[in-house]
Amino acid sequence: MREVFQLELEEVQDRLVAISELVSISIDNATQAFNNSNVALAERVIEDDHRIDELAIALDELAINILARQQPVARDLRIVVSALRISASLERMGDMAEHIAQLARYRFPEKAVPKGLRSTFAEMGRLDVEIARKLTDLLRTEDVKLAEEIRNEDDKVDELHVSVFDKVLGETWKGEPVATVDATLASRYHERFADHAVSIAKKVQYLATGDWQQPLEA
Amino acid sequence: MREVFQLELEEVQDRLVAISELVSISIDNATQAFNNSNVALAERVIEDDHRIDELAIALDELAINILARQQPVARDLRIVVSALRISASLERMGDMAEHIAQLARYRFPEKAVPKGLRSTFAEMGRLDVEIARKLTDLLRTEDVKLAEEIRNEDDKVDELHVSVFDKVLGETWKGEPVATVDATLASRYHERFADHAVSIAKKVQYLATGDWQQPLEA
Repeated sequence: MREVFQLELEEVQDRLVAISELVSISIDNATQAFNNSNVALAERVIEDDHRIDELAIALDELAINILARQQPVARDLRIVVSALRISASLERMGDMAEHIAQLARYRFPEKAVPKGLRSTFAEMGRLDVEIARKLTDLLRTEDVKLAEEIRNEDDKVDELHVSVFDKVLGETWKGEPVATVDATLASRYHERFADHAVSIAKKVQYLATGDWQQPLEA
Repeated sequence: MREVFQLELEEVQDRLVAISELVSISIDNATQAFNNSNVALAERVIEDDHRIDELAIALDELAINILARQQPVARDLRIVVSALRISASLERMGDMAEHIAQLARYRFPEKAVPKGLRSTFAEMGRLDVEIARKLTDLLRTEDVKLAEEIRNEDDKVDELHVSVFDKVLGETWKGEPVATVDATLASRYHERFADHAVSIAKKVQYLATGDWQQPLEA
């Protein structure tokens, strides 16, 4: 029974890694679509988001099924409950990638990236992609050093997010309202993407370091 | 044992109702703070958000505790798992109220509501407050008619959200970039607030109507 349970927990972990990999591909495609006005790539991200949603629902069903059959307690229970929360956050990360892709599609054939913010969004995109890759590795290896790195990179994303507002509210900003709207939304989506990764990283860290007795932050 | 479990489920439900009530007060205060530039009220919302977060964490701990001790299956298990998800959504609704309040505080003593959008945001705020109140009633009574009403009101919020973009991207828009940013963010927060309510309403509806065998949407 115990052995079956361990195999099931591995299955949960493998599926989280698989969803995280898809999210990682989606944010890579989405930021490319956004930065290069690639509408075909944007549409792929939008399609792939359905797949991410389906996999997250299927994983939740597996987790509920494990709760019902195995009735885990203590750390094992927290692993399964955490999996439910991690899948919800991964699903939201997929949504953020989709939103970024949609901005590229809405504005096509115009560029979605506002002038004067090209390098900022290139850097935010690069950081989000790196965060997503590290998150996949963290879920696979439970190497908590990666959780720390994700947090540091999220700090950089937050700084860039603030710098976007400094720019559009500054005296040199010449953007039309559409550029201001796009900058605001795109920056928010990039920032939220990274936030969700940090929230997942914290959960993995709690479980890996034995801090799981502490109440988990939502 | 069964009776204890039923009492515990009632405790979970009571706590969800209590958090939902606080969220309802917060969105009422937040939209008033935003629409009337009331910075004291904005600060109250920001303080109250900590309380909402704490209650959500405590509820999650109770739910996990029930899973560990009572080992529920079938519908009972889904009720407890749904409570975890509902508490996460309520916590996010509290965050949205806080974000709306923060806009009022950032811009003070200037008005945060952009000119030309006063009536739109008054109406969005009114709808969000109504949605929050109905959500509290839905959690208390499980009257699924309310779920339908929440969905209809969310549709109206979505229409207003679209109308905000029509306005700021239209030819008559004379707002400074700061007004464009505030309109974009405020509209997004109001819309997300209502979305979370719909997602909670769906979960209550599934549980109340016996559709709980279906996979729950994330």
